[in-house]
Amino acid sequence: MTTDSTSASPLALLGLGDMGTALARAWLTAGHPLTVWNRTAAKAEPLVAEGARVAASAAEAVAAADLVVVCLLDDASVGEALAAAELTGKDVVNLTTGTPAQARERASWAGQRGARFLDGGIMAVPPMIGTPQAGGYIFYSGDHALFEQHRDTLAVPAATRYVGSDPGHAALHDVALLSAMTGMFAGITHAFALMRPEQEVKPTAFAPLLAEWLRAMLGMAESMAQQLESGDYAEGVTSNLAMMAAGNATLEATAEEQGVSGKLLDPFMASMRERVATGYGDEGLAGLVDMLRQR
Amino acid sequence: MTTDSTSASPLALLGLGDMGTALARAWLTAGHPLTVWNRTAAKAEPLVAEGARVAASAAEAVAAADLVVVCLLDDASVGEALAAAELTGKDVVNLTTGTPAQARERASWAGQRGARFLDGGIMAVPPMIGTPQAGGYIFYSGDHALFEQHRDTLAVPAATRYVGSDPGHAALHDVALLSAMTGMFAGITHAFALMRPEQEVKPTAFAPLLAEWLRAMLGMAESMAQQLESGDYAEGVTSNLAMMAAGNATLEATAEEQGVSGKLLDPFMASMRERVATGYGDEGLAGLVDMLRQR
Repeated sequence: MTTDSTSASPLALLGLGDMGTALARAWLTAGHPLTVWNRTAAKAEPLVAEGARVAASAAEAVAAADLVVVCLLDDASVGEALAAAELTGKDVVNLTTGTPAQARERASWAGQRGARFLDGGIMAVPPMIGTPQAGGYIFYSGDHALFEQHRDTLAVPAATRYVGSDPGHAALHDVALLSAMTGMFAGITHAFALMRPEQEVKPTAFAPLLAEWLRAMLGMAESMAQQLESGDYAEGVTSNLAMMAAGNATLEATAEEQGVSGKLLDPFMASMRERVATGYGDEGLAGLVDMLRQR
Repeated sequence: MTTDSTSASPLALLGLGDMGTALARAWLTAGHPLTVWNRTAAKAEPLVAEGARVAASAAEAVAAADLVVVCLLDDASVGEALAAAELTGKDVVNLTTGTPAQARERASWAGQRGARFLDGGIMAVPPMIGTPQAGGYIFYSGDHALFEQHRDTLAVPAATRYVGSDPGHAALHDVALLSAMTGMFAGITHAFALMRPEQEVKPTAFAPLLAEWLRAMLGMAESMAQQLESGDYAEGVTSNLAMMAAGNATLEATAEEQGVSGKLLDPFMASMRERVATGYGDEGLAGLVDMLRQR
């Protein structure tokens, strides 16, 4: 994709790690005038050959464009890098990984310094940046006018998804999806461990069955959401907690037989058992959501 | 689907719980002469009106057909129900939930009594039985000739998937898929818990994003399988263990901020950290499979 550079708005980009470098390349490829800064200046060199201008300091980079994208190691690095920059009238888009509270505090900090602020959570690895067909995207939350004004520019590295004016919500969506993925990967790891002693079952023959089953079971997310929203935790339940908890005994006994630790699944199974023991066996999984909450 | 009853082979079915009853209805609807037995005889009454014959004992039911399907509470119930039955020359298909070792022992027990044996693991809930469009299916393993001879009959309640001659493999596939699902549900539960305090994010708006993300991440099962098969655990890795483990700190901090216990994800995160600490940070998840194995 080549865009007429007279129509592509200029950006400043702070941070040239793997992700920052991928973002820089995407904007350069699309013809955006780009000023980059990185704490270790050597990282910028390959990008200069591709058309980037290198700033000697973060403050100088910020001065070079109204739209400032920040993709640093962590939130503390953002504070340090921007400490000496003049932010008045700037649009700051923070793609640095952080927690929702860090994003909210950073938004307030940027606001006090006269900048508009948008936080982003990148749902992609660097090789997916600039290749829309790879399916990656970026959650954005915070200043909606900023998002609307720059949405075409923001859409260059990856598809955009604006999830609300609360600047913490992009990070929260990001973390929630990665957390769910972590649980899914734990389950997949356990499943492969169960199969490991069976020489006749090739992992690559088993994997498609596993993926197909998990895909089919994703409907549970929708039914849990409906239960949480209606407050009727037995709504639409076909396999209730009591049935699932009873089935867990076979899962545990099989892990034991196959020489597999049950530790990855134990805490969830214990929650199911506890919920059934306190009288909610006819419900679905929604009640387990409340059990996880500590205040 | 109505089948000419002269072509539909007779069956005996032991066990009329929710699943057994659904199986019975599927075969009756397809025109199979069906003899049923249940410990509590009252459960058979509605089926008589639909054409089933009721046997006074399990032994009598077994005597009524060459193909005997068993769907009881657990493996011990199978042994009790069949204790007095003449099994010589019978084809026993055991759809009772159990562990792989139980299936192997039951296969050997049936063989000693002159029967062929096939074990099954039902990947469906009762409402999905007899409705092929619902997508449920049954794993089968054990005597292949038995499976081939009766495959049309076995395909009446749900699609069939034969996974090998080891009679334990149907149960193992069943348990492995349910175990992976348990991990995925744990992750989904954690994700909803993180979102719970945010009044502006409706669970039903969040659920599709969650399901879409997990669907996209299912490719990890395939890449883990390739790593396990090649023995090269760094094969095809885009986001390695060290990167994932570093990201976990943000996941943990966010759970803390949102008032959510990290207990469902802690054991897997601890495994990742341990694996990175022992020098495998450049690998993917496959090494965690071996860490789960206890002998």
